[in-house]
Amino acid sequence: MPEAFHPLDILRRKRDGLSLTTDEIDSLVSAVVSGQMSDAQIAAFLMATFLRGLNSDELTALTQAMRLSGEVLDPSPLGSFLVDKHSTGGVGDKTSLLIAPILAAAGLAAPTTAGVPGICVPMISGRSLGHTGGTLDKLETIPGFNTQLSLPRMLEVLRTCGAALAGQTPNLVPADRILYALRDHTSTVESPFLICASIMSKKLAEGLDALVLDVKTGSGAFLRSDDEARHLARLMVDTGEAAGTRTVALLTSMDQPLGRFAGNWVEVWECADILRGQPHPISADLIELSLHLSGHMLHLAGAAATPEAGATLAADLLRSGKAYHSWLQIVKAQGGDTDVFNHPAAFHKPAAKHTLTAAASGYLASMNCTEVGWAVQRLGASRTRPGDPVSAHAGIEMHAKLCDRIEAGQPLVTLFTEEEILLDEPVQMLRNTLEIRPSPPARIPLLREILTRENLSGHPA
Amino acid sequence: MPEAFHPLDILRRKRDGLSLTTDEIDSLVSAVVSGQMSDAQIAAFLMATFLRGLNSDELTALTQAMRLSGEVLDPSPLGSFLVDKHSTGGVGDKTSLLIAPILAAAGLAAPTTAGVPGICVPMISGRSLGHTGGTLDKLETIPGFNTQLSLPRMLEVLRTCGAALAGQTPNLVPADRILYALRDHTSTVESPFLICASIMSKKLAEGLDALVLDVKTGSGAFLRSDDEARHLARLMVDTGEAAGTRTVALLTSMDQPLGRFAGNWVEVWECADILRGQPHPISADLIELSLHLSGHMLHLAGAAATPEAGATLAADLLRSGKAYHSWLQIVKAQGGDTDVFNHPAAFHKPAAKHTLTAAASGYLASMNCTEVGWAVQRLGASRTRPGDPVSAHAGIEMHAKLCDRIEAGQPLVTLFTEEEILLDEPVQMLRNTLEIRPSPPARIPLLREILTRENLSGHPA
Repeated sequence: MPEAFHPLDILRRKRDGLSLTTDEIDSLVSAVVSGQMSDAQIAAFLMATFLRGLNSDELTALTQAMRLSGEVLDPSPLGSFLVDKHSTGGVGDKTSLLIAPILAAAGLAAPTTAGVPGICVPMISGRSLGHTGGTLDKLETIPGFNTQLSLPRMLEVLRTCGAALAGQTPNLVPADRILYALRDHTSTVESPFLICASIMSKKLAEGLDALVLDVKTGSGAFLRSDDEARHLARLMVDTGEAAGTRTVALLTSMDQPLGRFAGNWVEVWECADILRGQPHPISADLIELSLHLSGHMLHLAGAAATPEAGATLAADLLRSGKAYHSWLQIVKAQGGDTDVFNHPAAFHKPAAKHTLTAAASGYLASMNCTEVGWAVQRLGASRTRPGDPVSAHAGIEMHAKLCDRIEAGQPLVTLFTEEEILLDEPVQMLRNTLEIRPSPPARIPLLREILTRENLSGHPA
Repeated sequence: MPEAFHPLDILRRKRDGLSLTTDEIDSLVSAVVSGQMSDAQIAAFLMATFLRGLNSDELTALTQAMRLSGEVLDPSPLGSFLVDKHSTGGVGDKTSLLIAPILAAAGLAAPTTAGVPGICVPMISGRSLGHTGGTLDKLETIPGFNTQLSLPRMLEVLRTCGAALAGQTPNLVPADRILYALRDHTSTVESPFLICASIMSKKLAEGLDALVLDVKTGSGAFLRSDDEARHLARLMVDTGEAAGTRTVALLTSMDQPLGRFAGNWVEVWECADILRGQPHPISADLIELSLHLSGHMLHLAGAAATPEAGATLAADLLRSGKAYHSWLQIVKAQGGDTDVFNHPAAFHKPAAKHTLTAAASGYLASMNCTEVGWAVQRLGASRTRPGDPVSAHAGIEMHAKLCDRIEAGQPLVTLFTEEEILLDEPVQMLRNTLEIRPSPPARIPLLREILTRENLSGHPA
């Protein structure tokens, strides 16, 4: 940290739209973590940054300073290629549970000379909040599964399994913890610059060689418009590449829940069915997206010549059962009981459920996917405040997807919860938002755009 | 306070440039004072307001909510016309010490039927900070003078003297105390909207019928450009008039210290000389400005047909000794020793002084008046942090003013301080900033513009 720190000068310059130096941003992040900068000063910085933005040097400096604000994963003892995926969050988005075992299987199939998986996925995930789900809450419905791994223990799981699925350690990117809590408290969450720094600082703290980003757009995404999603995606690709991590972003549709289920255990169940070679037809979009993302990851890791060849390899690893084998290995390594995967439906024990049927014939034409996510939250599957408990068995099952032909009286969606009384509001919310029309709507492609360092302007997928 | 308060909604709307309702602003100010809103949320509001501004309804609502956040002066028992003056701050600006007794003399000359002065000036003033002086620090150099009056005591002084000169009571506009401290801490001081709300909430809490604002512009002012000063002046006239207080703003030059002295006791001395009918020639600009301001106040109070006639009346009250009589009355009523005014020079006891002389002949062509103010501060006359002590005897005496013909070797300025060692830096600062050139500069008029409700666009004075 440089000798003199002048928070008022930094605030004044950002306020007036002038750019900050890397030294100033380093001092600022150090002062945030040390407590030298007050909450009020941090809040003023966040609001000024929200309104003035950051140029690419400032964003890179902020991301790096946040990344280095605490401990980082040092993967050099492994000697493997480290790759991860990050999604900006959606409803029923469970691709991590398929991608981690697919990549782990690929890594085990191509070990280093030291016998370690050639590819490792150090997947540090978050919890559900508001209308979106969180990987940790889903994993913790597996009896015994431990998501709280120290970094040395994480390295150990990676060494044996090729993937680890864990929560953030208390001292990983402490600056983000402070900044995020204050953003949440001061209406400064939705800044693409602050979102980028928050996501990328945590991902880069994993010591990655490559990162594939799933940036959601559509009615269930935090960023509703393609333009906003593309802007965030560009910032993240730029920031990742500037840090020496190969970074690719996929812009994908979040206009309906991904796959068959949204909730916690039900999402694990859906993935277990896919990994065991018994996919439900409604899971098709989930599988498609997981293969796209895995394909790019395998391509970046050098295991496939193109992303398309990577997707084909990923499909082979799924079909052959190798990904399922890796899945069981990871779950066991993290203390989980794998017996539940033999009869996943039997482990689903909601106390109450209700099926909504179609009032008329036609086509499932539209829904507000954020509203669907909030219905899932109200059923008990997500929380409105960090730290609140969530239900393992709450959630929904989609019986139809957008553009599907619907007959009157046909089931549309089943709601699960732990208390009968919790059904009323979500039933109403879903009834209001699921719209059936006489003619089919235009089909929205799942994969919208791919942004890479070579093509930062984005091109149609 | 309306039933539901949603600080995050308010922050989001201000952040996005949407306007807030009066109810929302009332809730916000209540929450600031009650502590329901955290410092971080207040800071985010201040930065969003700095960058997004306030429309006139919002500014009126904020000013009124702040005004009503604590106790207010209720002048109705007096039945007098209440008028005050406020200056945005400068160097050597001591007009309050002349205006209060001039107006008090006018009020005593035209009592109400109940025998109370027909015009009263409830002057609540501040302390020096940074490069600007503060009326309270000057007054407190008078032995025994008490600036801490309760509101009932203030009414009593007004009833007998027609003017009172006091500090803010602890519970007058508490919202401003909180907001100002956070603005100072988050680089959000220089917003015309926040400056307007801060000044006007305090002035309107005096229960005024009329207010004359002295908005400084030039190198010694907080707002350097005429445009910024005019903008602030317009906001304040609008806000005052919207609250039912007749409000006039004078844009005046602050390009050199006003009058002969800048400091604390020396400024009281200068005013005592003027009030006693022995003005020093260098005090001419101070007298001119004080008469302009008094003239507008007397006009608004109905004691003169025009501001010009008011200025003539003010000059008469000065010349006749009636203002000096009022001055002695006010000082006595507030516990001050009036003997010091018989020999004010004898009461000036700086431990060290130094006179800077002209290195060459020519004209005093320019100075950075803020720099001159900082030199006065370094001599000990002002503070850099609220609460720090100030010296009674530190200050400067100007021997020449801008545009004056100067001969090499002629004294330009004398510096006074309490410790020899404190002279070095200010001497250097003044030597660097006082510039002598071969030809005289263009003369800057003291009174630049007058803004009234009839003429909000401003017109040359």
